[in-house]
Amino acid sequence: MFIHACLGKNEKGHMTIGGVDTVSLAEQYGTPLYAMDEATIRENCRIYKEALRDAYGEDSLPLYASKAFSCKQIYRIAAEEGIGIDLVSPGEMYTALKAGFPMEKAFFHGNNKTDADLRMSIESGVGYIVVDNTDELTALERIASEMGKVQKILLRITPGIDPHTHQKIITGNVDSKFGNAIVTGQAMAIVKAALACENLTLEGLHCHIGSQIFDCDPFDDAASIMIGFIADIKKETGKEMHFLNLGGGFGVRYVEEHEPIDYAKNIRAIASHIKALCEEKGVHLPAVLMEPGRSIVAASGITLYTVGSVKEIVGFKKYVSIDGGMPDNPRYALYQSPYSVYTANRLNEKAEYTCTIAGRCCESGDLIAEDVTIAKPVRGDLLAVTTTGAYNYSMASNYNRIPRPPVVMIQDGDSYVAVARESYEDLIRNDR
Amino acid sequence: MFIHACLGKNEKGHMTIGGVDTVSLAEQYGTPLYAMDEATIRENCRIYKEALRDAYGEDSLPLYASKAFSCKQIYRIAAEEGIGIDLVSPGEMYTALKAGFPMEKAFFHGNNKTDADLRMSIESGVGYIVVDNTDELTALERIASEMGKVQKILLRITPGIDPHTHQKIITGNVDSKFGNAIVTGQAMAIVKAALACENLTLEGLHCHIGSQIFDCDPFDDAASIMIGFIADIKKETGKEMHFLNLGGGFGVRYVEEHEPIDYAKNIRAIASHIKALCEEKGVHLPAVLMEPGRSIVAASGITLYTVGSVKEIVGFKKYVSIDGGMPDNPRYALYQSPYSVYTANRLNEKAEYTCTIAGRCCESGDLIAEDVTIAKPVRGDLLAVTTTGAYNYSMASNYNRIPRPPVVMIQDGDSYVAVARESYEDLIRNDR
Repeated sequence: MFIHACLGKNEKGHMTIGGVDTVSLAEQYGTPLYAMDEATIRENCRIYKEALRDAYGEDSLPLYASKAFSCKQIYRIAAEEGIGIDLVSPGEMYTALKAGFPMEKAFFHGNNKTDADLRMSIESGVGYIVVDNTDELTALERIASEMGKVQKILLRITPGIDPHTHQKIITGNVDSKFGNAIVTGQAMAIVKAALACENLTLEGLHCHIGSQIFDCDPFDDAASIMIGFIADIKKETGKEMHFLNLGGGFGVRYVEEHEPIDYAKNIRAIASHIKALCEEKGVHLPAVLMEPGRSIVAASGITLYTVGSVKEIVGFKKYVSIDGGMPDNPRYALYQSPYSVYTANRLNEKAEYTCTIAGRCCESGDLIAEDVTIAKPVRGDLLAVTTTGAYNYSMASNYNRIPRPPVVMIQDGDSYVAVARESYEDLIRNDR
Repeated sequence: MFIHACLGKNEKGHMTIGGVDTVSLAEQYGTPLYAMDEATIRENCRIYKEALRDAYGEDSLPLYASKAFSCKQIYRIAAEEGIGIDLVSPGEMYTALKAGFPMEKAFFHGNNKTDADLRMSIESGVGYIVVDNTDELTALERIASEMGKVQKILLRITPGIDPHTHQKIITGNVDSKFGNAIVTGQAMAIVKAALACENLTLEGLHCHIGSQIFDCDPFDDAASIMIGFIADIKKETGKEMHFLNLGGGFGVRYVEEHEPIDYAKNIRAIASHIKALCEEKGVHLPAVLMEPGRSIVAASGITLYTVGSVKEIVGFKKYVSIDGGMPDNPRYALYQSPYSVYTANRLNEKAEYTCTIAGRCCESGDLIAEDVTIAKPVRGDLLAVTTTGAYNYSMASNYNRIPRPPVVMIQDGDSYVAVARESYEDLIRNDR
């Protein structure tokens, strides 16, 4: 019935998450509500950690891509699981610091880091800064020197892979706001510039080819190009790279039609390709890093909504309106992302009501899903949208001045608040 | 040089808003920064207010559609200008209440109002609730009765106009999450149901046909259908409608190619059409309401950013990265909305650098504009994006845990804070 193992149905015909009745959760915390199964998150951390360590040794690590879902509690979980984190802003850095995350395992990303950001990351003891461009390299060298520090860095490289069309090379992903393209010579130029920086030590390279990738081939392609580039660097400069960061991108099932993915198996397959490449090119096997975000948290999460109206437009569609929408989940409006939807308090009834799930915003495009088939709901029923653990809370807005829902974690058959519900007072806190 | 009168260039070659140097604003408040010219907002309020009053008499009023930009200060301005407001959520209602807005001039909208929302709006003395559907009508009648109150309402009607293709009737906008379609008979059914409610008084009808509409014809079409429906109601029930709310939708210039619009002239033209229709159909001229949001605030606003890197991908595009992006302006990511961009501290230099303006988020789609031509910037320069007064602050998120910029108002050559900058502490306030 469900595509994720943490979801189920109890004897009342109610949907459960981590064994907890969603109807009880809605009663206890109100709706809209994000609920996340902690065991799923921890299991995903372990799958990545063990597979990477087995393939590449102790220095290999998954770095949780916190843009998928950032709050203090997720950094505590990452710390307890012994994985690293990928940060993309000083706000994420501040959150991780306040959660007590060991910052030497943090990698700081982004195509535009301000001087203040760079200073803050050196002060905070961020392990690695992933330098995106020459403007940043120049600024970081100057700031590190001013602060009398030596900072470890990686460089962001653009291999030029389109992961979805599986076309190698040159168009599409060379033309990106991120990184330095190998094919234009700009990647080698920044490597040499970095090696010449006295206050920076170049520890490795980073690339990221896209997201929602369901097979290994694009990663193999990226690895081929990156190992080839590492060999070129060795040839031209004598320097070998300790880290190769392959970024994120493994897909997640949102709907039945998406293929299930065995992350560990994929990691093993890519590793055997990389080992062969290193041997062929005569370079050391790097410690490979990966940056899973979506694939750590997405499947753990659901969003619960209360139905407010059911509207059947004679001769047209049926609309089920919920008490949330694009403010808590803008992904349908942004990308037409598909979701699975259930009438969570009526799982014993047949799902045969095909309808559009509309949010409560005054905006026609505020929809969560179109043409999904659920048990027919009435005002007051509970709707569950699944696979909302990634890029929902983190992308949430206060559009229409709607407070953001709380995030509740499910653990050992019980629940606790990871992020509290915003109040109306929160909405006007900065209004003068 | 600029499409809005509040923008200019000073003797230093810097861009000004309301006569104030944008470089000084950036120094004083930091970037990213929203700046809005108060005089422009007030002038737009007056244009609508006077044109509607002149055309339809004292009960006619513009209702500021606060979803375009909601904060306490904008409700104070609306109150001072003597216009009404359109609210779409309890959060907007709370903000207006805290700003001391006279709630009898408030109209509460939305396709999904919860019981709590309905109770709050009666308690808050909201003048009119615009009832969207029969589930809501039933709930509101019950709640008003429980509270021993009589509530004035409008009904949301779907005339079935597509404002952009200018096709009258039946597809497209009949199929909407909002309102009750005339053509299906559902509109007349809800009118009769409303008239039968003891604790509700039906004061009029509301329709909204779309946004960014640059000519009068779609409004004329909507008015024809609505006046025809009002005549049908009179015939079937004997009841005449006091209000006809035509919603929002007048376009706003974002770029040179958009036509300038004379709102007062359009209102006069639509009024003469409506007067003729009322005479023809034998109904009273209703007090017409309109709900301008974008056309009140959009042109008043600019966003100021600091450039972090300029990247030229050999053989491909040029990317200028700024210290904001889709978190403060998601409209390019959502709708590919066009914007005008300037290097605000280099207006004396020729604009001949064609580039893409990229935000700082770790997301390829985080762009603000593509292929705009500006004076070539370097790291540290100031970029201004214009016409950002509507649907920027109100749609802003903390994606990538980036704090939302402050909103500064320009008044009489000086500036003041309307909304303060979010702090890192604000970001984790609800984290447990």
